[in-house]
Amino acid sequence: MSSPITPLDLTLDGGALTARLVDFPSVSGDEKALADAVEAALRALPHLTVDRHGNNVVARTNLGRSERVVLAGHLDTVPIADNVPSWVEGDLLYGCGTSDMKSGVAVQLRLAATLTEPNRDLTFVFYDCEEVEAARNGLGVLVRTHPDWLAADFAVLMEPSGAVVEGGCQGSLRADILLTGTRAHAARSWLGDNAIHKAAEVLRRLAEYQPRRVAIDGLEYREGLNATRIDGGVAGNVIPDECRVHVNFRYAPDRSVEEAEAHLRSVFEGFELDLVDVSPAALPGLGQPAARDFLAAVGGEPRAKFGWTDVARFSALGVPAVNYGPGDPNLAHKRDEHCSLSAIAETEERLRAWLS
Amino acid sequence: MSSPITPLDLTLDGGALTARLVDFPSVSGDEKALADAVEAALRALPHLTVDRHGNNVVARTNLGRSERVVLAGHLDTVPIADNVPSWVEGDLLYGCGTSDMKSGVAVQLRLAATLTEPNRDLTFVFYDCEEVEAARNGLGVLVRTHPDWLAADFAVLMEPSGAVVEGGCQGSLRADILLTGTRAHAARSWLGDNAIHKAAEVLRRLAEYQPRRVAIDGLEYREGLNATRIDGGVAGNVIPDECRVHVNFRYAPDRSVEEAEAHLRSVFEGFELDLVDVSPAALPGLGQPAARDFLAAVGGEPRAKFGWTDVARFSALGVPAVNYGPGDPNLAHKRDEHCSLSAIAETEERLRAWLS
Repeated sequence: MSSPITPLDLTLDGGALTARLVDFPSVSGDEKALADAVEAALRALPHLTVDRHGNNVVARTNLGRSERVVLAGHLDTVPIADNVPSWVEGDLLYGCGTSDMKSGVAVQLRLAATLTEPNRDLTFVFYDCEEVEAARNGLGVLVRTHPDWLAADFAVLMEPSGAVVEGGCQGSLRADILLTGTRAHAARSWLGDNAIHKAAEVLRRLAEYQPRRVAIDGLEYREGLNATRIDGGVAGNVIPDECRVHVNFRYAPDRSVEEAEAHLRSVFEGFELDLVDVSPAALPGLGQPAARDFLAAVGGEPRAKFGWTDVARFSALGVPAVNYGPGDPNLAHKRDEHCSLSAIAETEERLRAWLS
Repeated sequence: MSSPITPLDLTLDGGALTARLVDFPSVSGDEKALADAVEAALRALPHLTVDRHGNNVVARTNLGRSERVVLAGHLDTVPIADNVPSWVEGDLLYGCGTSDMKSGVAVQLRLAATLTEPNRDLTFVFYDCEEVEAARNGLGVLVRTHPDWLAADFAVLMEPSGAVVEGGCQGSLRADILLTGTRAHAARSWLGDNAIHKAAEVLRRLAEYQPRRVAIDGLEYREGLNATRIDGGVAGNVIPDECRVHVNFRYAPDRSVEEAEAHLRSVFEGFELDLVDVSPAALPGLGQPAARDFLAAVGGEPRAKFGWTDVARFSALGVPAVNYGPGDPNLAHKRDEHCSLSAIAETEERLRAWLS
């Protein structure tokens, strides 16, 4: 038995549609009802072909245009924190997902419903589980199962960017450095070999590390290398035999994963490095024709994206991608998350101008 | 309603009596039945005055001798680990508490029962909760409530020492050094201030620290300064705002608590130190007449005691104290804990020679 599908009215304006989406809870793992509603609303539009895999919905025009662009967004939110249903204060719409990223999804849906004759073929991607562990990410699932659905010349990921174009993204490597020694009673410390003391040199190299700044396609990327965790010790009276330093290297998109790993290994030469997590960087690709037109249409000064985002998944498919969405990234995941109603309208208008 | 008291037969030899005591479980906090039995057995001896406070029992001769010595031991054991009841293999008695320290208690009881006319007045102290947190330690309770019961010229604590005299004990200071910074997302690490990286200098000073060796009363004490725990970090993608290094300074008995603290603060000058635990050291006191006679009687080469033991509680009362017991300190708290039957007999014989 399936529940009846709650209809979505795509004739509402972007702000009102965002409010409807926020009032439709879809915490990661619980996106089915919203995915059903999105799918039903898109299937009602005769100019779109609609595909679905799990709770991931892809709608495409097939007009034979010379270029195809993707507009992508995730349906899920972080857990609700007493901030649903949504409410309006002046120009601001408050509620869970207003910024990250149901305002972006509302713009996608508005464009899908109204751009029946776009100047480029369009692919609208709605996916699940962006806010949880990478293995569950719906866009990642589509990359593995239906990469053909994502084929395009350029992609816009509508994550909150303050309505500024954020190009590419940094890569991220996480690794453990395990220092080992020999346990002994602290009263006879000369019988032991203190593993925590051996972390001194690892932390020294980190403290003295000079991170690089690099310009790519006119955007400045800043790297960073940090210990994000350290943990060692057995008891207050025992010389510890293990100490683990967890490091995170955020690197600019002119390094491949392999180059980033080689750099990390050279920084910690003499220590054993255990890679925990590897995320490739994404080049901004702002030199692409579709990207140049996009920049001209949306205006403003593009900037580098520092956090890792799903643009890297497009980049891995050979599709240059940028972040551009109406939400404010600094408000994402906060209890007082909100989004400017005029920013939602403006984002929709600029994208429509680019695609008409 | 109280349970009937299980009688203890003090005419058994030291090894057999140790076995009986081991078969009488008395894990820390659960010493009442054994304290009852010890008290009853001592009260049956007309040459002794017996006092009790909680599960701490003190028995004294009152012969007006010019010197008084204490023989002290704790009644409790660490938790049983499938090693009760005791069993014998050749010269070895196995079981929980055989080494730490029911063999010592058996020797105390044997001497209490048989030394009716000792050459020095004797005080036998049996106490509880030595194996748990210091605040519950029964000897500490007696120091606070009945210091007069412990008055003496010299004390022998019958903790396992491999039948070698171990003089005094090291002091121990434990302190936390808290490093603080500012949280930020690891993708924008320049907005943060990494607290873990600040631990580099703390660990460098520890790694380069040269511990002192010092001779006192002919015994060599070796100091040690170590990080025994380190802990910092919020999440794999967050610049951490806190890192805590826990250090343990074991110091020789020529330093007072205040001097040890001042030394620690000078080593970590520039960092804030939060003292967690302070244990004074104990001087070996081997120059005392009672100590010199004791050394001559028991023979062997005395050595410094490195671990902190309850001798420091006697030292704080102005009573020089040594560790001397039949058990092997390396076997304490182990599942295969055992004690040599001949060492038990020999310890009793040597103490009897000293006191007769």
